[in-house]
Amino acid sequence: MKFEVTIMGCSSAAPTKNRNLTAQVLNSDDQLFLIDCGEATQMQFIKYHIKYSRINRIFISHLHGDHYLGLVPLLFSYHLFGRTKSLHVYANAALEEIIHLQLKASDSALGYPLIFHPLAENKSEMLYDDDKLSIISFPLKHGVPTHGFVFRQTNAQLNLDTTKIKGLNLTHEQLQTLKQGSDVIAENGQLITYKSITLPQESPKIYAFCTDTAYSLSVVHFVKDADLLYHEATFMHHMLKSAEEKHHSTTLQAGEIAKRARVKRLLIGHYSARYDDLRPLLNETATVFPNVELAEEGKTFII
Amino acid sequence: MKFEVTIMGCSSAAPTKNRNLTAQVLNSDDQLFLIDCGEATQMQFIKYHIKYSRINRIFISHLHGDHYLGLVPLLFSYHLFGRTKSLHVYANAALEEIIHLQLKASDSALGYPLIFHPLAENKSEMLYDDDKLSIISFPLKHGVPTHGFVFRQTNAQLNLDTTKIKGLNLTHEQLQTLKQGSDVIAENGQLITYKSITLPQESPKIYAFCTDTAYSLSVVHFVKDADLLYHEATFMHHMLKSAEEKHHSTTLQAGEIAKRARVKRLLIGHYSARYDDLRPLLNETATVFPNVELAEEGKTFII
Repeated sequence: MKFEVTIMGCSSAAPTKNRNLTAQVLNSDDQLFLIDCGEATQMQFIKYHIKYSRINRIFISHLHGDHYLGLVPLLFSYHLFGRTKSLHVYANAALEEIIHLQLKASDSALGYPLIFHPLAENKSEMLYDDDKLSIISFPLKHGVPTHGFVFRQTNAQLNLDTTKIKGLNLTHEQLQTLKQGSDVIAENGQLITYKSITLPQESPKIYAFCTDTAYSLSVVHFVKDADLLYHEATFMHHMLKSAEEKHHSTTLQAGEIAKRARVKRLLIGHYSARYDDLRPLLNETATVFPNVELAEEGKTFII
Repeated sequence: MKFEVTIMGCSSAAPTKNRNLTAQVLNSDDQLFLIDCGEATQMQFIKYHIKYSRINRIFISHLHGDHYLGLVPLLFSYHLFGRTKSLHVYANAALEEIIHLQLKASDSALGYPLIFHPLAENKSEMLYDDDKLSIISFPLKHGVPTHGFVFRQTNAQLNLDTTKIKGLNLTHEQLQTLKQGSDVIAENGQLITYKSITLPQESPKIYAFCTDTAYSLSVVHFVKDADLLYHEATFMHHMLKSAEEKHHSTTLQAGEIAKRARVKRLLIGHYSARYDDLRPLLNETATVFPNVELAEEGKTFII
């Protein structure tokens, strides 16, 4: 089952020549989830061939401009393209008023239901849960109310081993029963155990998204054992004082969170515009947590 | 004296693979004026090497998203870059509330004075006037209150003929007096007439900007005799019904306005996303008004 994240932007605060603002697309079995939506995210969708009509849920970490100012343009474009299916937006409550004021100014009503879910401040909530994925929010430490998100595969269903079901004449209902972990009796009276016909279950994967945040050990609990943790690393560690003043993290701090949470892989991003070359950020983080990669535009990370 | 306009975007409604949303930079003697500010205009400034710290006045035609959703991101970036000088924004009054709500959501106060000038609806106003340029607004016909803008060189000052002032030992004050059209007495008692030492005055140039608008003959009066008229041409003329429904203009209508207003050159833009190849739009417009060019990203038109 597909479970991967593609980076649309990785710059902090303002765009640079080569880097756009924060936005990531999580693909879970071809359902797309958008995480943050900086200015020009829709242009990035076009550039990187993202089928963005498939996005039904959008998660906004906080209301600093670089994380959400691409949202209202995207809402308008969906309307122009004739979207009719619901769009769910999870964000700080203040965003709802911003959206409605901008719709009013353009004398527009969207042609599809926009369902706004205000995020509870200073706590963790279950935002979404189906038979493939659950999504929770958790609080980060930043200048304004800010949330991280954890996307966890639920994998309630098993996958059939297609090489073994041929010739058994099983009905659609029987196949569904097997996928749910129960045995069935075939037409010829033979007992078919679900274990004999399904693939060994992969352990459900976890993606954790953490931006923007000051160094905060309370994050460790929420992102524990993630297969992939995205953690911001706005600055090299010698800029610790700037990071603290601006409620951001350094390379070494991102690595430290990854190490303490025992995640499998770390992805850093949200780089300050002062860095042209990102390798020093990667190398410094690796001194604490070696299995680290750079979030870069257009790159897809399989989780 | 430099007087030229550079196109940052020319798509209507939604961006396409090759076209961004409306924004134009008018350079008048190295003072920059921004006209409309669609999403990702600041990315276009970076791409096309526009020295956008020099922009002090921004004119927003109307509050459809494709004409202004790049403004708040730009305001935040100016703040991040440490801007201290005033920025003037001329737009429909509702934009002021949108800006302030977004500043409040990010718990920010801009580090520079933002001076908001609400545009009077359904009338023409003088917005700005100095010794080089005057700027007026005028009403267009669209679904929401919409304005066009006319930028007219005032050329109150003459330009000195540098080959003729050598050896005359004129003071800075004397040179200023000559540029203002008065004669002076040189150190040696010689009368220096301003006519003998300044260049023949070029006639002041006019740039008129018209987007978005249904075909409206009332526009002709305001854009009369412009050296360059930008007029939207969202559709080919066989789409007249769509144009009328959406309060937009066709190629032939843009040409007709240019002809009736006796402008010198016409620039069309705001193309519907349905057009990949823009030459048919150009050719159709030229059947009515031959001296027409296509607004395209990054192109500069000397006025």
